Amino acid sequence: MLISTLDIIGTIAFAVSGSLTAIHKRFDIFGISIIAICTALGGGTLRDMLIGNTPVFWMSATHYFYIVIASAFACAIFYKEIDGLKNPLLTFDTIGLGVFTLIGIEKGLQVGLDPLVCIILGTITGCFGGVIRDILCNTIPIIFKTEIYATACLIGGFVFFILDFFQLNPIAKDIITLGTILTVRFLAIRKHWSLPQVKA
Amino acid sequence: MLISTLDIIGTIAFAVSGSLTAIHKRFDIFGISIIAICTALGGGTLRDMLIGNTPVFWMSATHYFYIVIASAFACAIFYKEIDGLKNPLLTFDTIGLGVFTLIGIEKGLQVGLDPLVCIILGTITGCFGGVIRDILCNTIPIIFKTEIYATACLIGGFVFFILDFFQLNPIAKDIITLGTILTVRFLAIRKHWSLPQVKA
Amino acid sequence: MLISTLDIIGTIAFAVSGSLTAIHKRFDIFGISIIAICTALGGGTLRDMLIGNTPVFWMSATHYFYIVIASAFACAIFYKEIDGLKNPLLTFDTIGLGVFTLIGIEKGLQVGLDPLVCIILGTITGCFGGVIRDILCNTIPIIFKTEIYATACLIGGFVFFILDFFQLNPIAKDIITLGTILTVRFLAIRKHWSLPQVKA
Repeated sequence: MLISTLDIIGTIAFAVSGSLTAIHKRFDIFGISIIAICTALGGGTLRDMLIGNTPVFWMSATHYFYIVIASAFACAIFYKEIDGLKNPLLTFDTIGLGVFTLIGIEKGLQVGLDPLVCIILGTITGCFGGVIRDILCNTIPIIFKTEIYATACLIGGFVFFILDFFQLNPIAKDIITLGTILTVRFLAIRKHWSLPQVKA
Repeated sequence: MLISTLDIIGTIAFAVSGSLTAIHKRFDIFGISIIAICTALGGGTLRDMLIGNTPVFWMSATHYFYIVIASAFACAIFYKEIDGLKNPLLTFDTIGLGVFTLIGIEKGLQVGLDPLVCIILGTITGCFGGVIRDILCNTIPIIFKTEIYATACLIGGFVFFILDFFQLNPIAKDIITLGTILTVRFLAIRKHWSLPQVKA
Repeated sequence: MLISTLDIIGTIAFAVSGSLTAIHKRFDIFGISIIAICTALGGGTLRDMLIGNTPVFWMSATHYFYIVIASAFACAIFYKEIDGLKNPLLTFDTIGLGVFTLIGIEKGLQVGLDPLVCIILGTITGCFGGVIRDILCNTIPIIFKTEIYATACLIGGFVFFILDFFQLNPIAKDIITLGTILTVRFLAIRKHWSLPQVKA
């Protein structure tokens, strides 16, 4: 229940982030919708394509499309207002990052994959929507260059499997994992943490 | 029969469009062939990867490769002549758009997917070859910014399912869907229709 | 045995090539690791996604990740030294190209695909890691413009199936195929061979 509410919040946040990027690039309303779809659903789509065997998740859950397209149109109409909401957007985006990572990890576990692979699938679910958005908009994916973003997913994933090892109950495990990702990400933004670059 | 003839025309048209773009970018003959393959077969490939479960269509239909590579070499040899044929190329490209969309919708129906998902798969089949072409050539995908293109597929898809609801016979349904896509696209080119952008 | 040793050498070489590109682009250590992973594992991943039906290869072979991430960190720490090793890197990269192509062809054969499709899958396995690297780094994929690279894979693939037709024993077939790819690629570098471009 909580997970699926947060999933919808995350989907909207990612759709809004995609829409705003597309509007900045002067795409038309179709382009805006596509970028919103790819940002919000791209990570989970890539995860399901990598797992193979089954159709991707949105084929049997079309409500995602209605949510994303409604978000895209809302952004197109109320662009100025929504673009101004920096802090709430960042909060929602971080919730999306956390919950998508958690969903990715659990999908990996369901098909019996190795913990390391589950963590990678979680990170892909959380982060690759944004990577696809940036590729379609012809810029270098932002997560390769800036602050701690994917790293929060990786840390959350390790915490998840440490708790799993100690056989914590599922709900506590989910909440602590989510809390870890959100805390790392918010602290990283607050304190301007970043990963080391290499002097080339 | 008609569908498979139109499929070949569409494949050639998309291969030519990819080849000409690659030649403009000064790719070598290998690069031209790859861009031609990705443009002509990329949309259907992505559709089949999303559906999962089965190998992509060209694995059991290698004639597509011969058609596409022959088109790429023809473009490399007769570049000046083919590049001059603006109107026939546009006509063929539009036929490809329509027939690829129709094939995508029907492939979705065969695996029992929801109408909305079928329309999306049809649009992906028709449009994403061009998106992959533009990503590989490092430009912003043209369909996000210009006239009605994918929109014609979406409208065609809705018409298809309206006719389906009234249980029209399959051949009439295919022809009317195809006719709708072609008409919308040609009118859009003729009248310089475009979708609204958002003032950023 | 030989194949799996060469596979590891190729994986390291591709991971190093990805890492050096990412360091040049001033990515952080996470970005470097991702580009290393995509370069080293991207070709095989795309191959497995195209074949469908099964999870991609690294889901049941996590040692690839440890190798690639260790390579990425080694590049970040010993950047100057590794960047200077032009000739050994080129040799390893070519070994990777050959062995990845061979593995791709054989994976295609295992699932009963047509020789032409196997050759294409082999070429994708050998070359598309580099294409994904270049897309993520927002440059035009280098293999579309420069010397003989993918062409070596294609020639190797044809040699493989000619030998297969004459029912040569598997080990000799593998060695001759590998030898062909390496020879073509080294000669191409040595003699500055390139494919013809088209005057646009």
